Amino acid sequence: MAHPDMPPAPWTPLAPGVWSCTFGSPEGTPPLTLLGTTPDRAGLEALGGAPFPLDPAQITMQAVGRRTIVRLPLEAGDPVFGLGLQFVRTNHRGRTRHLRVNSDPKEDTGETHAPVPFYITGSGYGVLVNTARIVTIHCASTVRRGESTQVRDRNRDRDWKSTPPASGVEIVLSAPGAEVLVFAGPTPLHAVRRYNLFCGGGCLPPRWGLGFWHRTPTRFTDEEVAAEADEYRRRGFPCDVVGLEPGWHTASYPCSYEWAPDRFPDPPAFVARMAAAGFRVNLWEHAWVSPRAAIHAALEPYAGSHTVWGGLAPDYTLPEARAILEAQHEEHHVAAGVSGYKLDECDGSELTGSSWMFPAHAEFPSGRDGEEMRQVYGLLLQQMTADLFRRHDRRTYGLVRASSTGASPLPYVLYTDLYDHRRFVRALCNSSFCGLLFSPEVRSAKEAADWVRRMQTVCFSPLAMLNAWSSGTKPWSFPEVEHIVRKYIELRMRLLPYFYSAFARYREDGTPPFRAMALLPGSSGDLALADDQYMAGDDLLVAPLFADQSERKVLLPPGDWYDFESGERFAGGSAVTVTRPLESIPVFVRDGGIVPLMPPLPHTPRAGDTVALEVRHYGRRPGRFRLYDDDGETFAFERGARRFIDLQVEVDAAGRRQGGVAAPGGVGGLNYDPVTWTFLGTGMD
Amino acid sequence: MAHPDMPPAPWTPLAPGVWSCTFGSPEGTPPLTLLGTTPDRAGLEALGGAPFPLDPAQITMQAVGRRTIVRLPLEAGDPVFGLGLQFVRTNHRGRTRHLRVNSDPKEDTGETHAPVPFYITGSGYGVLVNTARIVTIHCASTVRRGESTQVRDRNRDRDWKSTPPASGVEIVLSAPGAEVLVFAGPTPLHAVRRYNLFCGGGCLPPRWGLGFWHRTPTRFTDEEVAAEADEYRRRGFPCDVVGLEPGWHTASYPCSYEWAPDRFPDPPAFVARMAAAGFRVNLWEHAWVSPRAAIHAALEPYAGSHTVWGGLAPDYTLPEARAILEAQHEEHHVAAGVSGYKLDECDGSELTGSSWMFPAHAEFPSGRDGEEMRQVYGLLLQQMTADLFRRHDRRTYGLVRASSTGASPLPYVLYTDLYDHRRFVRALCNSSFCGLLFSPEVRSAKEAADWVRRMQTVCFSPLAMLNAWSSGTKPWSFPEVEHIVRKYIELRMRLLPYFYSAFARYREDGTPPFRAMALLPGSSGDLALADDQYMAGDDLLVAPLFADQSERKVLLPPGDWYDFESGERFAGGSAVTVTRPLESIPVFVRDGGIVPLMPPLPHTPRAGDTVALEVRHYGRRPGRFRLYDDDGETFAFERGARRFIDLQVEVDAAGRRQGGVAAPGGVGGLNYDPVTWTFLGTGMD
Repeated sequence: MAHPDMPPAPWTPLAPGVWSCTFGSPEGTPPLTLLGTTPDRAGLEALGGAPFPLDPAQITMQAVGRRTIVRLPLEAGDPVFGLGLQFVRTNHRGRTRHLRVNSDPKEDTGETHAPVPFYITGSGYGVLVNTARIVTIHCASTVRRGESTQVRDRNRDRDWKSTPPASGVEIVLSAPGAEVLVFAGPTPLHAVRRYNLFCGGGCLPPRWGLGFWHRTPTRFTDEEVAAEADEYRRRGFPCDVVGLEPGWHTASYPCSYEWAPDRFPDPPAFVARMAAAGFRVNLWEHAWVSPRAAIHAALEPYAGSHTVWGGLAPDYTLPEARAILEAQHEEHHVAAGVSGYKLDECDGSELTGSSWMFPAHAEFPSGRDGEEMRQVYGLLLQQMTADLFRRHDRRTYGLVRASSTGASPLPYVLYTDLYDHRRFVRALCNSSFCGLLFSPEVRSAKEAADWVRRMQTVCFSPLAMLNAWSSGTKPWSFPEVEHIVRKYIELRMRLLPYFYSAFARYREDGTPPFRAMALLPGSSGDLALADDQYMAGDDLLVAPLFADQSERKVLLPPGDWYDFESGERFAGGSAVTVTRPLESIPVFVRDGGIVPLMPPLPHTPRAGDTVALEVRHYGRRPGRFRLYDDDGETFAFERGARRFIDLQVEVDAAGRRQGGVAAPGGVGGLNYDPVTWTFLGTGMD
Repeated sequence: MAHPDMPPAPWTPLAPGVWSCTFGSPEGTPPLTLLGTTPDRAGLEALGGAPFPLDPAQITMQAVGRRTIVRLPLEAGDPVFGLGLQFVRTNHRGRTRHLRVNSDPKEDTGETHAPVPFYITGSGYGVLVNTARIVTIHCASTVRRGESTQVRDRNRDRDWKSTPPASGVEIVLSAPGAEVLVFAGPTPLHAVRRYNLFCGGGCLPPRWGLGFWHRTPTRFTDEEVAAEADEYRRRGFPCDVVGLEPGWHTASYPCSYEWAPDRFPDPPAFVARMAAAGFRVNLWEHAWVSPRAAIHAALEPYAGSHTVWGGLAPDYTLPEARAILEAQHEEHHVAAGVSGYKLDECDGSELTGSSWMFPAHAEFPSGRDGEEMRQVYGLLLQQMTADLFRRHDRRTYGLVRASSTGASPLPYVLYTDLYDHRRFVRALCNSSFCGLLFSPEVRSAKEAADWVRRMQTVCFSPLAMLNAWSSGTKPWSFPEVEHIVRKYIELRMRLLPYFYSAFARYREDGTPPFRAMALLPGSSGDLALADDQYMAGDDLLVAPLFADQSERKVLLPPGDWYDFESGERFAGGSAVTVTRPLESIPVFVRDGGIVPLMPPLPHTPRAGDTVALEVRHYGRRPGRFRLYDDDGETFAFERGARRFIDLQVEVDAAGRRQGGVAAPGGVGGLNYDPVTWTFLGTGMD
């Protein structure tokens, strides 16, 4: 019962299983254009074609005053996933999502650090609105007159809901049009992979990025930072990256980007000293340029009409503005050996009505307005800094607080001030739908159980970090559980070959390294809607426990599953209740799963280093794992300098298992020696 | 440092101290046009002229893309009041207010049940954006590049604020223009009075509207309602109005507007029976028309594109749609003797992303869109139902959950589901800036102290109501404090002559009957910013205590003040700390204040009834009170059938006080006999 003003528009195929249609007259620069996105055509071809997943005649556009509405059908009961880094729910069906960047995503409105107008249905296709404008998506939360729906009386019927069943998605653009892209399935994972590949493929962090991170407190000096890092070594806790928080600059709010000479008199020497101890240095910064910054005057002609905390908001869509910041960062940070950034505060909150960003009506020299710039500022900062390192043939990995469409290849991980463990896990699940990575960073804890449970989760995430900027905590801050925290930080290091390979797959075929259960092929019903458990790589199912729990329900997909630690078998296809002491996070391995582990080194090894490899196999089915490797630091892998090592387990008729290694070629990476095999899950129970 | 695209526009005087300027090309129908607002010219003339309060050259307009920005200067330190029914703060300086109707105003964004784009500065002028579109007002919360401001470093300076000092208000219109009106002072009260008079003057409720109200539980039958009302009489608690909640209709969510024959088999007989016992009947309803309603088919051609809970959203800007609803209401409710309505659910929330209203992109037959209709729906319902009663020469008084610009003459009081006592008091203060009335209704309480403190506040508000729709509470629900609750419900009834006169003044000269301290002439600094105390009429200062307090600080304006109960004198001009037992809410009377009281009758008297009058005078200064009276029920007062009785107290050189009554003429109202005088506050301490 839509009332289209226009006949259905034609859909243009852009790649196998990817189509585009421009509705009306788009406004502004869409993110994929702004980023200069180059689809990974080889990856998309490898994925293969698929039929257009919707009836084009049912996709209509209508102009209503200054709004444009694109309406798409939605099958009864089909869940709606995605829409960016959502914290409050996973299935958005029946909800209206207001996709505006906002640093304080407490409420269930859709606003978030990374509001991506891309949804994936449970039935297995994706819809992207390629616009930098704020989009409101009514996910079957509106009912048109004449549309068949169920009318209940709230006063007499307990099943009354404020949103009755509806049959369509209404995308509301405040602009006169936008490009819409459709990504075919057949499964939600296929749609997500097409999206990631269309955006250029997933990012591959440097190997050290998957080690453990620690952020030192605000206002620390070089000596204090070094002492805190040394303590990791003395106590034997692995750590690869130390992050500096506000106070390393001459001015931080707004930001100068210049080392404070009283705290960091010799930055290159400091970075070199840290490197010698096996630490990379990551720098916190944000986008608003202090009047005290040397580059302030140069940036002024390229800045927006409004200041933030008195700092400039440069228009980084302009090459001139980028060049100024990049030159400064190159000279003062990159040349000094810094490994990357934490890009804060690019997602200003409006929930309290105060001013954490320029307003939507600000003007920028490129002609863009504040609304558009707010939506893409995080993307611009990510791309600019990533490019900077790429020009030096160095991979970076960092943190960012705002992102959007097209971020899949950008080596940045989102974080938030929202510090709710359950919401963190949900966000980790949801991030996988939209080419985003999320870190459920640990900052502090009310008590030891909370501390442990958070540490366990973060060690199974894209970026395992203790952020002590305000709390001053350390992994051993709760002495009574120090051994448990050590176990998980060590496990993080041991899982490095596994996780690095998962990221290589993200890069190569768009499969998110950490992903929601809905992205497991065949997942449906409650399993697809699960928001408190997730897959880490292909073989591990992680079901975090929260501080108030000692047992929980886990939805195991069909097939046998094995406890990661004990090898105990669990029958899948239903919910199991598991009890675990504080010492253990429930992690399950699929039948035939292979998990390569290396020793818990103090920091990640470098290319050419020799490390032992323990290969674990679980269960009764044969298995295969493609262990990825390269130099871990540069982009040489893109030029072919990489290799895949095949780890295979055969199972004979008597159930005996045998492992084998095949390295069919390639160059770069670690020397794995010795390789040992551990077989868990007897399958005899 | 504004960058106007256009030269400053000319300001057209509309009335003494009121100017208009049309910026750009307004869109939609502004509320004052929609309401057909007729300014009270006589009242405005009586208020007299005043110079234009701003430098017109500093008021600029700029088009930025599809937004229009109107920029006005704001003096350093000048607070910004108003902007509708705000719950979280009183001074909006430094904040961005997003003035969108929203039923869940928990956050400090500006969204609320009644988002009025009208602000009043502490320096004493008002600015109204006369538009039905959503307006965002940056109240000195944005700083333009080049604008002088103070740059601090958050990392080194504890006084850092996310919003540095700014010098202007930026009004952001999503439409290509709007009419802006300026209301001169010289004081904030003058600006508010001009606004109210320009909107047609304040409302004068029927006398019974100022009695005590009780709402019975949902799904009650006629017999249950009558029994609950009888209990008020048996226990001797005054009560004038009984409100029916969902369940009196055949269908309520969506709404049929038709009496449920199983619960109310004979509505006229039920209303007559209630009337015989001295009760008026008020009906809960909302705007979304059930398919079960007889008028559904007739309204369908006039309804919006989207349904709400399966109900129609009629376009009540159309005379045809109004006529259908009005005829139904007239036949089924007004003819049956019903006194008025509680108009619920016209302010749909979006905070949880669910659908409590039609979306902003809905289309309506009049050509209006959902955004505009959302913003004015509450206004339309108020006007339609008020007109219905006016055609019968009956005044109504009721409740509504959404309102907007121009509501001053509409006999409706706002309420909210937000149940925080402190926020209730703040909203009561803030409502006075924008021609709104608010009831801090009592529903339930955690314990007796909370119950009492809420009851004390509501008895000093525009509508004193116990809303037991869900809780089933009664005034005697906490037996241990029943005597205190009785005292205050009785006091409400005793104060009726005082409050009725305050409303007459609202009607006549635009002075809000309950008002924020900032509207006290000469109020400034902390006193003007106070949000937990307010004036009730001209003479009473109410400083509610909250359940967790037994003492509090009260900011007394200069001069002497007297405790309402004991007459104890307090020196004003500073903060005093007062301690009160649960039995007492701190209420102070200004020096020379006169408070007329009548007996605590079971219900309000009718015209021609004879009631005793106790006139209290406080302090050392002579006083005068204009006691207003009329028939209390009809609009005859507009045709001259009203009178003012002058109550005067003279003080001789020895400090002796003498009261006198003068009734210079007029007709209608009560017979006050006997009139006794009580003099409190010796002034000898």
